[in-house]
Amino acid sequence: MSDLVIIGGGGAGMTAALTARKINPRVDVTIITKESLSYSSCALPFVISGEIPSMDDITSSMEAICQKSGIKLVLDSATSIDTKKKVVSTERSGLISYDSLIIATGGRTMVPPIKGADLRNILTLYTVDDAEKIMAQANKSKKAVVIGGGAIGIEAAAALVGLGLKVTLVEGFPHVLFRFFDDEYLAIIEDELKAKGIEIILSHFVEEVMGKEKVDAVKVAGKEIPSDLIIMATGVRPNSEIAEKAGIKTMKYGILTDWLMQTNIKDVYAAGDCAYSRSMITGELMLSQLGTTAIRHGTVAGMNAVGESVAFEGALGSMALKIFDLKVGRTGLTEREAKEAGIDVISGRAKATTKAKYYPGHKEVDVKLIFDAASKELIGGQIIGGGAVAKKIDLIALGISKHATVEDLIGLGYSYTPPLAPSHNVIVLAAENAYRKMKRAEEARRRRF
Amino acid sequence: MSDLVIIGGGGAGMTAALTARKINPRVDVTIITKESLSYSSCALPFVISGEIPSMDDITSSMEAICQKSGIKLVLDSATSIDTKKKVVSTERSGLISYDSLIIATGGRTMVPPIKGADLRNILTLYTVDDAEKIMAQANKSKKAVVIGGGAIGIEAAAALVGLGLKVTLVEGFPHVLFRFFDDEYLAIIEDELKAKGIEIILSHFVEEVMGKEKVDAVKVAGKEIPSDLIIMATGVRPNSEIAEKAGIKTMKYGILTDWLMQTNIKDVYAAGDCAYSRSMITGELMLSQLGTTAIRHGTVAGMNAVGESVAFEGALGSMALKIFDLKVGRTGLTEREAKEAGIDVISGRAKATTKAKYYPGHKEVDVKLIFDAASKELIGGQIIGGGAVAKKIDLIALGISKHATVEDLIGLGYSYTPPLAPSHNVIVLAAENAYRKMKRAEEARRRRF
Repeated sequence: MSDLVIIGGGGAGMTAALTARKINPRVDVTIITKESLSYSSCALPFVISGEIPSMDDITSSMEAICQKSGIKLVLDSATSIDTKKKVVSTERSGLISYDSLIIATGGRTMVPPIKGADLRNILTLYTVDDAEKIMAQANKSKKAVVIGGGAIGIEAAAALVGLGLKVTLVEGFPHVLFRFFDDEYLAIIEDELKAKGIEIILSHFVEEVMGKEKVDAVKVAGKEIPSDLIIMATGVRPNSEIAEKAGIKTMKYGILTDWLMQTNIKDVYAAGDCAYSRSMITGELMLSQLGTTAIRHGTVAGMNAVGESVAFEGALGSMALKIFDLKVGRTGLTEREAKEAGIDVISGRAKATTKAKYYPGHKEVDVKLIFDAASKELIGGQIIGGGAVAKKIDLIALGISKHATVEDLIGLGYSYTPPLAPSHNVIVLAAENAYRKMKRAEEARRRRF
Repeated sequence: MSDLVIIGGGGAGMTAALTARKINPRVDVTIITKESLSYSSCALPFVISGEIPSMDDITSSMEAICQKSGIKLVLDSATSIDTKKKVVSTERSGLISYDSLIIATGGRTMVPPIKGADLRNILTLYTVDDAEKIMAQANKSKKAVVIGGGAIGIEAAAALVGLGLKVTLVEGFPHVLFRFFDDEYLAIIEDELKAKGIEIILSHFVEEVMGKEKVDAVKVAGKEIPSDLIIMATGVRPNSEIAEKAGIKTMKYGILTDWLMQTNIKDVYAAGDCAYSRSMITGELMLSQLGTTAIRHGTVAGMNAVGESVAFEGALGSMALKIFDLKVGRTGLTEREAKEAGIDVISGRAKATTKAKYYPGHKEVDVKLIFDAASKELIGGQIIGGGAVAKKIDLIALGISKHATVEDLIGLGYSYTPPLAPSHNVIVLAAENAYRKMKRAEEARRRRF
């Protein structure tokens, strides 16, 4: 018996456990997981590339963390949940009863049903084990194809280029990172990938993987691309079978949750890659499946499961990426996405430097802000270049969640000193650009009457 | 005759002119100024230190900027204003009439009435001319005393240390930057100054400057400190005489303004170091006198003077500083200031790294957030260390202006990728720390009944 039982020890599960213990040190917490290591999947591409010297750098012993934090660790598989009796069955550790339960079972990489997808040297990238297989195979390979141009696909492709492989990146959408950036920024990102030697094939799905036993080539867009190694970065499917079997509501593999991250069953929460939550802006259900979303889910579920009442305010899809020498970030809706959702938008864009333009070592930064034209509220932002991309994205994310208007951003009480920041703030400049567009649109409307 | 006449071409005046022209390109704008160069005073310490190679790097020709932006430039002194006839008199350029007027006359450095304050080699730091005098004298000097431990005093002291001088810094308050940080952060800042060889004398005012014709020593705290050069960094007095003579309301040298940056006289605005505005949090009148405040004043005055209606939302005193190897920043109220203002506060503090802690090249960062205990709203923040200090301060500033609560910050939709940002955001961690303190305080209150 534990006050709180958590199935899964990844970002969501571990954060939930630590949060619950911190908020109420009297609470008894148990984590059930097969994984003896704790790590962030987001770090794996950088171990493959060698930027992080060793797998040991990114992994910690689950046992050590749990011991230090007073969490009970059950290294086992949960096999079923009885939500009436409030008990979890495990493979070898018997029954564990709970007062509150958090399902944080994560996901597993999806491999699409392509002919030849069962050949050797077709790998995915989600676990330490996956990364180790990629490293071993990359060592023996000259050519690789990465299928899927999302964040993981791009980071994996960049890592392989760093190791000296010739890499082709295949994406079914018209652009890599298509859901995350608008076209003008995607052009810059794709130029950077091409400049570093990655061949990009867009708007095409892989038709077939060719080879005997092991991969020899990939058939796509009418071409055969020779390859010793394929990375399938085609998405993550939620591990929600255990929840479904227990009668917990799921949808297309993901577990449904409310704003408290509670499922349809009282005292049962879900968090992380296995759980649906809502978009902060449109309110629509989405599988965000970012490391930060897992942590935020875990924080909210961990608090609520031990008696707090905190809402998950919704996912924004905030993301930062380092693509070779390019730093990019985004949050909220893209202009494309907003238009699809029927929102009339006005965007503002500005370029500036990261330090005063006369201070040595400054870099250029390019910011786009997207506003709802009716409410003048911020609903999205994209950044390329410079430093502090992640922190600028965080500021935009806070602005979206607090309904900041274009005037709020023009009035931002920012800081300045030549060695650290320029006198004119790029977020303010982009807001001023949008403000002038709004003013012109208003004048044009007035002139019609 | 100009639609808009601006007296002064510094940060506030120039921003106002450029903003007005951008928002309405049909508007006719004139700047009256004696200064033929445009520059940011905040850059001067870094030219003295040599970090910025030459004065030419930070200065631009007023004439070139104005020509490029379609602004009329009158290189002359404004001598008086007739607000009834709407006309400005100049020394040599006759009368210039206006429809809207912005007074952006800046300030001048104050030298306190200390005995010996008229000796040679007592310099101030506000203009290019000042900086050039300091550079010339520093070349011939071995020992310097900087009087005033504000941002300019600290940057000047650091610059002189960089040039090989032995520097003593004298501050009348119990700490340098006393108005800007709480004690625990000031201890770290003062340790850094001392570690770099600066002697700091606190809680003492200079009694006398000694010497014949030129400075020989400074008498303070019962000691005589030999010195070849003194920098008086004792504050800036607003240039408001021209406004006062014209019957515009002033107070203790500064020009009073409303939320539109308009003075008590219709169509006459004031902006920058010469103008009072209000604290965003307490609503009290204050002379903010930061470069960023000048720019924000100028933006608001420039827009409103040509027909917009935008409010200056108040000053937060957002600041970033690089003190040798230390990066620091702050915004809003300190804990000390809040208590003085009768606000019951709960603060949260957290340390984290700037990138994932396993990613090479990360640095430590230490954040303190200050919340109003009653409303749970953010009212201040302080940061030491790491990178992106300025951008984190900007995020906190946005949070204060949008009344972000501790829960809003716990739910921040931040971004993460190991090379750019850690999985756990330091602002969120500091908010969680404050949340737990609030919870404990609440429980303690409950137990009393």
